[in-house]
Amino acid sequence: MDKEIAAKLGALRQSIDNVDAALVHMLAERFQFTQQVGRLKAQAGLPASDKQREADQIARLRRLAEEANLDPAFAEEFLNFIVAEVIRHHEKLADDNGK
Amino acid sequence: MDKEIAAKLGALRQSIDNVDAALVHMLAERFQFTQQVGRLKAQAGLPASDKQREADQIARLRRLAEEANLDPAFAEEFLNFIVAEVIRHHEKLADDNGK
Repeated sequence: MDKEIAAKLGALRQSIDNVDAALVHMLAERFQFTQQVGRLKAQAGLPASDKQREADQIARLRRLAEEANLDPAFAEEFLNFIVAEVIRHHEKLADDNGK
Repeated sequence: MDKEIAAKLGALRQSIDNVDAALVHMLAERFQFTQQVGRLKAQAGLPASDKQREADQIARLRRLAEEANLDPAFAEEFLNFIVAEVIRHHEKLADDNGK
C-alpha cells in the first residue's frame, strides 16, 4: 500500500476508534440511567413501558439525526436496538428479584 | 404520580435524552469518517472489507465494554449493527457511481 494512503487510512481508523470508545462509554452511562429508571418505576409501581415517552424519544431522535445529516430511519432503528437491550436488562432484573 | 418520583424520573429522562443526543452526533461523525475510508479505499483500489481490522475492532470494543461494565456481547452486536449501516452506505455509493 502507498505510504500516503496508509497514513491517511491509519489516521481515519484512529478517529473511528476514538469515536467507538466514546460510544461505548456513552452507552454504559445510558444503561446506568435506564437501570435507575427501572428501579424507580418498580418501587413506585409504575408500568415499565410508556408509549408516549417512547414516541417523543423517537420523534426527537429523528429530528436530531436530520440536523446531523444522519438517516432518521437509522436513528430510529438505533434507538429500538438500544431499547431492546434495556428491556432485556429489566427482564433480567425481574427474574433475579423473583429468585 | 408522586411529585418526588416524577421529579426523579424527569431528571433521569433528561440525562437519557442528553446521552442520546451525544450518541446521535457521535454516530454522524463516525459515518463521516467511514465515508472517507470508503472513498480512500475506492481511489486506492483497496478491498472494502478487511477481516483483520474488523477482528481488532471487535476485540478492542469488547475490552472497553468490560472496563465500562457493559456486556461485551452487546458491544459486539452494537458494532455489527453500525457496520451493517456502513456497508449499506458503501453499496449506495457504488450504486450511485454506477449510474
